[in-house]
Amino acid sequence: MKNIAVLGSTGSIGTQTLDVVRGHRELFHISVLAANSSDELLEQQIHEFEPELAVLSDEAAYARLKSRYTGKTQLAGGRQAFIDAAAYPAVDTVVTSMMGFAGLEPTMKALDAKKNIALANKETLVVAGEIVMRRAKEQGVSILPVDSEHCAFFQCLQGEKRETIEKLLLTCSGGPFRGKKREALIGATKAQVLAHPTWNMGQKITVDSASLVNKGLEVIEAKWLYGVDYDQIQVVVHPQSIIHSMVQFCDGSVIAQLGCPDMKLPIQYALTYPTRQSSDFERLDFWKLKDLTFEKPDTDTFKGLRFAYEAGKMGGSMPCIFNAANEVAVGAFLKGAIHFLDIYDIIEQTMMKRACILEPTLEELFEEDAWARSYAASLLET
Amino acid sequence: MKNIAVLGSTGSIGTQTLDVVRGHRELFHISVLAANSSDELLEQQIHEFEPELAVLSDEAAYARLKSRYTGKTQLAGGRQAFIDAAAYPAVDTVVTSMMGFAGLEPTMKALDAKKNIALANKETLVVAGEIVMRRAKEQGVSILPVDSEHCAFFQCLQGEKRETIEKLLLTCSGGPFRGKKREALIGATKAQVLAHPTWNMGQKITVDSASLVNKGLEVIEAKWLYGVDYDQIQVVVHPQSIIHSMVQFCDGSVIAQLGCPDMKLPIQYALTYPTRQSSDFERLDFWKLKDLTFEKPDTDTFKGLRFAYEAGKMGGSMPCIFNAANEVAVGAFLKGAIHFLDIYDIIEQTMMKRACILEPTLEELFEEDAWARSYAASLLET
Repeated sequence: MKNIAVLGSTGSIGTQTLDVVRGHRELFHISVLAANSSDELLEQQIHEFEPELAVLSDEAAYARLKSRYTGKTQLAGGRQAFIDAAAYPAVDTVVTSMMGFAGLEPTMKALDAKKNIALANKETLVVAGEIVMRRAKEQGVSILPVDSEHCAFFQCLQGEKRETIEKLLLTCSGGPFRGKKREALIGATKAQVLAHPTWNMGQKITVDSASLVNKGLEVIEAKWLYGVDYDQIQVVVHPQSIIHSMVQFCDGSVIAQLGCPDMKLPIQYALTYPTRQSSDFERLDFWKLKDLTFEKPDTDTFKGLRFAYEAGKMGGSMPCIFNAANEVAVGAFLKGAIHFLDIYDIIEQTMMKRACILEPTLEELFEEDAWARSYAASLLET
Repeated sequence: MKNIAVLGSTGSIGTQTLDVVRGHRELFHISVLAANSSDELLEQQIHEFEPELAVLSDEAAYARLKSRYTGKTQLAGGRQAFIDAAAYPAVDTVVTSMMGFAGLEPTMKALDAKKNIALANKETLVVAGEIVMRRAKEQGVSILPVDSEHCAFFQCLQGEKRETIEKLLLTCSGGPFRGKKREALIGATKAQVLAHPTWNMGQKITVDSASLVNKGLEVIEAKWLYGVDYDQIQVVVHPQSIIHSMVQFCDGSVIAQLGCPDMKLPIQYALTYPTRQSSDFERLDFWKLKDLTFEKPDTDTFKGLRFAYEAGKMGGSMPCIFNAANEVAVGAFLKGAIHFLDIYDIIEQTMMKRACILEPTLEELFEEDAWARSYAASLLET
């Protein structure tokens, strides 16, 4: 029986993680559920999974839940309680399905407590990949990727030696605007941006998929997870989202992982690794499958991917700046405060304004994140 | 340094094996070269690779070579010398790239001498899969598949547990007549049959690819190599021959192996396993790749595949009968003695005429093979 903490249990990955647990109650016990502010959904989850601990980061939401709840689960509230939940004693694996830069602190806390990580919070590795990977190695714990692409790489690399990797082929649906040019994106509405053709995800990641910032974040994530150079990571647009990614080896052979676009598969794989467990997830039917196609990404139009490579190659604190500026810009776009293409301008201006710190400490990364948020926010006002 | 015997060194797989050896002279030494009757090509190979032993199965060809050759390599001639070459003392790995049922005896001889097998002779497993796999297990040696599809399965299964296989997805180009119906095949000429759209191979296997008998042989081969039921092997027509085959696991995940259609890759993999060696083989370019498509095979028109499943499911001696009848029919077709579609009639009539022996000995299989050849030949005369 594996004891699991789900940090971000009311989000898209969090609820799908609980779906996976529902399918294998004999394998998993939910010890900790933690969310930001969705007290009603968290309360339902507490009743169903009876964790030892449940946390709401938002104090007001915590107060609401506390006033209603009478069961056995211990409740806690506030940001520090959320972070501390990552180190809850009985837990084997922490699913980090919280959103954005805010995932970094709890993930570090979990590593310090020698927890294995099922990583759904890619920003952790984007911002602090070197620090996080080193800490995981020192602690002797695993970071198992939940992102479908990185889980694909991980599956393709089973039984293979890392030094035989020639290239990671990172697939990308292209998002709702694939094939469109800059002029066509000027008036892109929130509804258009959120209409992802193949994946049903949270709002932030769906905007990032449309801008290809998400693919850029994944490039940086892949670099840290698999220890390759940026030149060894090639993004391939594959609109059908059937091939979830591929590895090309030194002999020219390519191994790919395929499946229906359903996050439950990578979630289950991360939770049951190193074994595969049977599932009733939908199967691919190759006798009925439509064509699989491939394209080169258009990084002139979708500059998010280009900026990510640039930030990654500069290294140090620059991916942190890139990510923070994007988080602010996407937040503003979702509130209707800026146009879709403004996201790129805010990222670019923020990156250009700040010098790169080459081997930043965790503390410096927090400072850089705060600076970038503040600077990006100031750009919104102009 | 791995010592290698190449049985069938002048054929398509044999010469490509020597290409691979040329690329990694630091890893491989050719100890034995053996061919049927191509004495001139064998002589060139002897001069280049300087094996300890070279054999020609055909006595007249051997006499010609012997009258010319003056070097250090020991020469031998005749069928028994060819078989004995499989057990040559210093050899680690025997590449069985000879053609048809005739590969069975030398392969058994190699297993008896505890040699690892790089198996390019699929008929060995089709005819005597149970006996051959048991013998390899008893002897503690490996059978490494050289067929591109089976090498793909083998690569996809690295680091995976056999019991988690849900399905083997065996890809198939469909051959030159894909999409055609029976009426269109009545007058198929030898030139049309031999014009394979994606693979450049020997004549016998190219005919088998057009009839889908080859895919049927591969179904039976896969059954024995990977210990699955026939219901777990699904043939998927994939005309571009980029995905060389796939494995679907119990969680619904599919792992695929892709590459340019070039037999050197699976040959090198079998020779260097368990490591991958760098190569200068052509790489796939996913930014330029045309579509990958998939279809259900038409087993009403291409009955070779259906007969193979039937023979395989009956088991015992029936795959031997199926294979022998096909070898006779293809030989007759290549001589212009019968039409393309007659191949199916000869296979079907021969299979229907003979009762199935359920657990045949090796001796009984030789008898069944001889009977089927004789019966199939008699059908040619009517």
